[in-house]
Amino acid sequence: MAGVGVVTRGGLVLKRPVTFVTGNAKKLEEVKAILGHSIPFHSLKLDLPELQGEPEEISKEKARLASLQVNGPVLVEDTCLCFNALKGLPGPYMHSLDMLPEFCLCVLLIGLNNLLLAYEDKSAYALCVFSLALGPDVEPVTFLGKTPGKIVLPRGPNDFGWDPIFQPDGYEQTYAEMPKEEKNKISHRSKALAMVKSHFVEVGYTFQTDPSSSEDN
Amino acid sequence: MAGVGVVTRGGLVLKRPVTFVTGNAKKLEEVKAILGHSIPFHSLKLDLPELQGEPEEISKEKARLASLQVNGPVLVEDTCLCFNALKGLPGPYMHSLDMLPEFCLCVLLIGLNNLLLAYEDKSAYALCVFSLALGPDVEPVTFLGKTPGKIVLPRGPNDFGWDPIFQPDGYEQTYAEMPKEEKNKISHRSKALAMVKSHFVEVGYTFQTDPSSSEDN
Repeated sequence: MAGVGVVTRGGLVLKRPVTFVTGNAKKLEEVKAILGHSIPFHSLKLDLPELQGEPEEISKEKARLASLQVNGPVLVEDTCLCFNALKGLPGPYMHSLDMLPEFCLCVLLIGLNNLLLAYEDKSAYALCVFSLALGPDVEPVTFLGKTPGKIVLPRGPNDFGWDPIFQPDGYEQTYAEMPKEEKNKISHRSKALAMVKSHFVEVGYTFQTDPSSSEDN
Repeated sequence: MAGVGVVTRGGLVLKRPVTFVTGNAKKLEEVKAILGHSIPFHSLKLDLPELQGEPEEISKEKARLASLQVNGPVLVEDTCLCFNALKGLPGPYMHSLDMLPEFCLCVLLIGLNNLLLAYEDKSAYALCVFSLALGPDVEPVTFLGKTPGKIVLPRGPNDFGWDPIFQPDGYEQTYAEMPKEEKNKISHRSKALAMVKSHFVEVGYTFQTDPSSSEDN
């Protein structure tokens, strides 16, 4: 971990704030709200290649590439919606729904239901993977949050991707129908973020900005 | 047209280059290739509100708003895919498919086919609308290019939105299956651009950059 930080009695001292790789201002706010403002974060939108593979491996590789680009600690996030009948598909291929006009989103969400028409098993899980890379040469640490549920016909507002078709186990409402606070208690993202938070507390990172490199931050 | 330009014997003299409102570099190249490099163009991505209504009205209003923002001449473009059985839907609500992962695009394209399952009439038309506004207070001029065809199950590469499900009348191939040069001969966009070009030739615009405002260009 040479060059990344120094381990002191108080924990690991990082020379730079953590870059949260996202182009989504709402996600940054969510991360800040859950992780607390004591950890210096800034966000950056990076053009990273579309990777193929298992969600955990994709996430780690993204963290490595991002850390190489910013030459400092990074946190990356990926979300998957996995249908058990389809052996985990669509998986990571469910991003970029934000920009889609509502009409297309509706057709897509019904289309996703249709994919399961031939299967009795409508079960699915929502998966959130965060990877923290302290530097380009440090093995990233991965945090997985998983919420089981089932795929239903769209119910609730269409303002957050596939939320209208995912009904978590033990609930009568879809993610989209649930009040935000209720959803945040059980969501895949909040579970993963809780693990990120525990990790930060456990390691006891502190931050010491190196003036010679501050222009990069 | 005070403030926009001066009509001389050689045509209308515009004080500024035309801003083509797009975030898509490929579209700018297409416009430049068809309109010729004699007309000074630059492109700019503007955040314009999502408007509702008829394609021609949406386009004109977008041109007005864009011209107000850049305080100069603008060209805006919109594309629609209209199903006759659905009285013109999805219409303008088919943009922003560029960013969609291929898996989602496939599901969406099959979903669009499914919308027509209950109808015998699979006919559709592709519509392209360009609007040219010379200034914020000048009524925009609109150019419509229309190509009739029908909706089919996806065939051909998935690299350009809904091209795989649109088969133009008189052809055995979908837009996606056609060689680009072939498609460009009959496409809705090339028809509209040909009209834009004729308009530019007819009016005989010439450009006279005003040095006092060049920093805005």
